Amino acid sequence: MSCEELVSALPEGRVITEPATMESYRWDRAYDPDAGTPLAVVRAESTSDVQTVVRYAAERGIAVVPRGAGSGLSGGSTAVEGGIVLSMERMREITVDPLTRTAVVQPGAFNSEVKAAAAEHGLWYPPDPSSYDFCSIGGNIATNAGGLCCVKYGVTTDYVLGLNVVLADGRSVALGGPRLKDVAGLDLTKLFIGSEGTLGVVTEITLRLIPAQRPPTTLVATFKSLDASTEAILAISSSMRPSMLEFMDRPTINAVEDATRMGLDRDAAAMLVVQSDEPAEFAAKEIAQIEALCQEHQADEVFSTTDPDEGEAFVVARRMAIPAVEQKGSLLLEDVGVPLPKLGDLVRGIEQIAQRRDIVIAVIAHAGDGNTHPLLVFDPADLDQKERAHIAYGEVMDLAVELGGTITGEHGVGRLKRPWLAGYIGEDALDLNHRIKMALDPQNVLNPGAVLDPAVLKS
Amino acid sequence: MSCEELVSALPEGRVITEPATMESYRWDRAYDPDAGTPLAVVRAESTSDVQTVVRYAAERGIAVVPRGAGSGLSGGSTAVEGGIVLSMERMREITVDPLTRTAVVQPGAFNSEVKAAAAEHGLWYPPDPSSYDFCSIGGNIATNAGGLCCVKYGVTTDYVLGLNVVLADGRSVALGGPRLKDVAGLDLTKLFIGSEGTLGVVTEITLRLIPAQRPPTTLVATFKSLDASTEAILAISSSMRPSMLEFMDRPTINAVEDATRMGLDRDAAAMLVVQSDEPAEFAAKEIAQIEALCQEHQADEVFSTTDPDEGEAFVVARRMAIPAVEQKGSLLLEDVGVPLPKLGDLVRGIEQIAQRRDIVIAVIAHAGDGNTHPLLVFDPADLDQKERAHIAYGEVMDLAVELGGTITGEHGVGRLKRPWLAGYIGEDALDLNHRIKMALDPQNVLNPGAVLDPAVLKS
Repeated sequence: MSCEELVSALPEGRVITEPATMESYRWDRAYDPDAGTPLAVVRAESTSDVQTVVRYAAERGIAVVPRGAGSGLSGGSTAVEGGIVLSMERMREITVDPLTRTAVVQPGAFNSEVKAAAAEHGLWYPPDPSSYDFCSIGGNIATNAGGLCCVKYGVTTDYVLGLNVVLADGRSVALGGPRLKDVAGLDLTKLFIGSEGTLGVVTEITLRLIPAQRPPTTLVATFKSLDASTEAILAISSSMRPSMLEFMDRPTINAVEDATRMGLDRDAAAMLVVQSDEPAEFAAKEIAQIEALCQEHQADEVFSTTDPDEGEAFVVARRMAIPAVEQKGSLLLEDVGVPLPKLGDLVRGIEQIAQRRDIVIAVIAHAGDGNTHPLLVFDPADLDQKERAHIAYGEVMDLAVELGGTITGEHGVGRLKRPWLAGYIGEDALDLNHRIKMALDPQNVLNPGAVLDPAVLKS
Repeated sequence: MSCEELVSALPEGRVITEPATMESYRWDRAYDPDAGTPLAVVRAESTSDVQTVVRYAAERGIAVVPRGAGSGLSGGSTAVEGGIVLSMERMREITVDPLTRTAVVQPGAFNSEVKAAAAEHGLWYPPDPSSYDFCSIGGNIATNAGGLCCVKYGVTTDYVLGLNVVLADGRSVALGGPRLKDVAGLDLTKLFIGSEGTLGVVTEITLRLIPAQRPPTTLVATFKSLDASTEAILAISSSMRPSMLEFMDRPTINAVEDATRMGLDRDAAAMLVVQSDEPAEFAAKEIAQIEALCQEHQADEVFSTTDPDEGEAFVVARRMAIPAVEQKGSLLLEDVGVPLPKLGDLVRGIEQIAQRRDIVIAVIAHAGDGNTHPLLVFDPADLDQKERAHIAYGEVMDLAVELGGTITGEHGVGRLKRPWLAGYIGEDALDLNHRIKMALDPQNVLNPGAVLDPAVLKS
C-alpha cells in the first residue's frame, strides 16, 4: 500500500517511510521478536496531525501503534506489520500553572522534563519510573506507570486530572480537566489511563502537582538471609510509611557493583534502600525505627544518612540495576507483584525457578508495593538457554498469580504478557475488556495485538 | 407483575412488597418528585442474593435500583416505577488486615463504621463526606464521594484497590484486589467507581488504609468581604497544603448559628475553617502562615487552636450546615465545582442568581477543591418560589460550566442533574458514556434513568 495520500494529508516533514529510518521505531525496550515492518512512521506535532493519521488508518483498516519514547518494557509499542507507528516524540510542550498547581503536558514530554518544569515553581510531579529521564508522560499514562516513590505517593493515575484523546474514528475529545473533584458521568479519564493505546491516542494531559518533596533521609541495610530481608520489608511496610522501600537481591547487587565499583557488599543476600521524607526530626525518628526493625530481622549492616546526595547515590545504584544486569546478557524483564505477606514466597520461588531452569534471575523490587522486577538473563546465541528463560518467564507469572499477585504491576501487558492475561484476570473480566474495546474501537485500529488478542476480538 | 418467583428464588426475609414498608425506599435525600413505586424492595445479604435479583430482573427486563444508605443527594437511588430496589443495608461486614493495611468491606457498611474499624488498628480511611456517619461505602463508591480532607488526601477512588461487582447479566466478577500496583488489562475498578450503579452492583470492596491522621491544628477566620475570602482561599491553596479548607457564607453561618447558638459572627460575609495535620511544630508554622495570608486578605477575626476538640466544634458546625439550612425550608442541593481561580466568580455569580430569582442560596464549599454546595432554599407550598428555585438550580450549573467548572464535584449526576450532563461533558464524551453503558448493560436493567437518558440509550 502506498502512503502518498498520508504524506499529502499531513503537513510536511511528518511522515517517514525510509526503511532504515523506520528501523528504530519497530521496537520498544522489550525488543519483541515478532515486531513487524510498518508502512510508515508519523511524527505528529499536533492533535490535528493525530486525527489525520487515525482517520486515514480507520478508513483503510490499518493499525495505528502509538509510541512515546519507546522505553516500554512489555512490547506495547511493537510495530505492527503494515501499520503506522504514531510517534509523539515531537509533542512535548509543558505549561505549569502554579496558581492551580496543575500542568498541561503533551504526551511526548519526558517524565523528567515534567518534574523539572514543576520544580521551577517549587512543585513536584511524584510518579518516578526508574526510566524517568528517558520515558515519556504519554507512555506513563498508557501503562499507568509507577516508580520508587509510589509506595507513599501513588501511581500515575493518582495525578491525572484530564486527558485529550483522539478516538478510533478520529474524533478528539476532552475528558476531565483542571477540576480537583469531578464526577459527571463515567470516569473516562481513569479508563484511558493504563489502556496502553488500545482505546484512544492521548494528545494532552492535565496533571495535578503537589509541593516539592522534603530532602529525604536514606537508610541502606544488607541482609545475609533473603527470608530475613523480606520479613523486614513486611515489618516496615505494616508499621511505618517510608517514601521509598526498594529491594535488590545478590545477583543485582553484584551486577551493580560490577558496573559502579561503589563498594556494595557482594556477599549480601539482599539490600534495602529506604527513605523518609518527613520533616527532619520525624524523619530521624522514622529512620531510627526502621533501623531497629532491620536489626530485629538480622540485618547485617545498616547505614543511614541525612545527606541527600549521599542517599541519592544508593538510589542511583538501584535505578541502574536494569542497565547493569543488561551487561550480563539479554533480558526478559518481569513485573510481577503480590500482596506484601507473599513477597518472601515470591522471591524464594523465583530463586527456585532460576535454579530449576539454570538461568540467572536478578530480582529488584519496589518492595513496599510488593512489586518486583525479576530480570531473566540469557545469552541470545544459546538457543536452549533462551528457551529456558522464556519458560521461566511464564513460570514467574504463574507463581505470582498462585500467590494472589498480578502479572504486571506497572509495565503493562503489551504484547509479551498477553498470553497470561486471561489466566490472571479471568474470563469474565477479560470479557469486560473485550466489550469496552469493541465499543470504543470496533475495527481494532488502535494498537491491535497489545493487551487483547485480535483473534478473540473478531470472534 | 407478581413477585412470587422472586420471593421463592431468595432465602426468606429478603423481599419486601408491602407498600407502606416500601415507601421509605422510594427516595434518597434528593427527594426526587418523580420517584416511582417499586415492585419490590430486596434487602440482599450476599453476592449470591444480588445475582439472583439481577438475573430475575434481566430475564424480565425489570429495572434494578441499587441502594446503599439512601443518603444520596442527586436522586441516584430514586425508585423506578415497577422496578426492584436492591438495598445493601444488610451487607455491612468489615474486615481490616493491619499487615497489608487494607480492609475488605461490604457495600452497606457506613463510612463511619469503616473509619472506626480502621482506627482500631491505628489506621485511617480518609474520604469523609459530611454525611460520613449515615452514608454507606457502597454509595461512596457509586458517586466517587469526596469530603473535607480530600483537599490533601484525595477522594474515594484513590483508596479503592478492588471491587466485586455483579454485572447486568448476573455474573459476579472480581476486579483488582489487595495489590498496591496492578495494570493488567483496563482499569475496570476505576471505571465502576463513580458509575452510580449503572454498570454493575458492587458487593465487596477492597480499600487501602493509611496510618492514623495526626491531631489537627484548626484555624477559623471570618471576613467582611466575600471577595476577600475567596482571594484568601486562592492564596492559601496555591502556597500551602492544609488538610482541610472549608468555606461558609453568611446565610450558612446564620443558619448554623440559629441551630447551635455557638457564637458565630452573624455579620461575617464568609467564614473559613482550615486545618493542618503536619507534626505539631510544622502545623504551627503552617497555620501561622495561613493566618498571615488571611490577615493580608482583610480577615476580620482569626482564631486558631491546637486543641482537637475545640477545633472539631467548628468542623461539626461546618458539617451540620446542610441540616441547619434544611430547617429554613426545602432544599435543592447543588454540587458545582470550578478551578480555584474562578471560585470568587462562582460565589459572586451565585449571589446574583439568588437576588435575581429572589430566593435564599446558602453556600458552603470544600473551598480548597473549588467544590461548592449552594443550598437553594424554598417553601414547597409556594409554587412560584419553588419554580424560581428550580430555575436557579439550572442557572448555577450553567454558571459553573461557563467558568470552566463541573455540574457535580462529588454527589453524582443521579436523576436530578441528568439534563445538564450533555451540556457539560459534550456530545462526544456523552457518546463514550453511552457506548460503555450499552456494552455492559445493553438492556439498561441497572439503575435506568440515572446519569444517562434511557430514551437516548434505546436509539
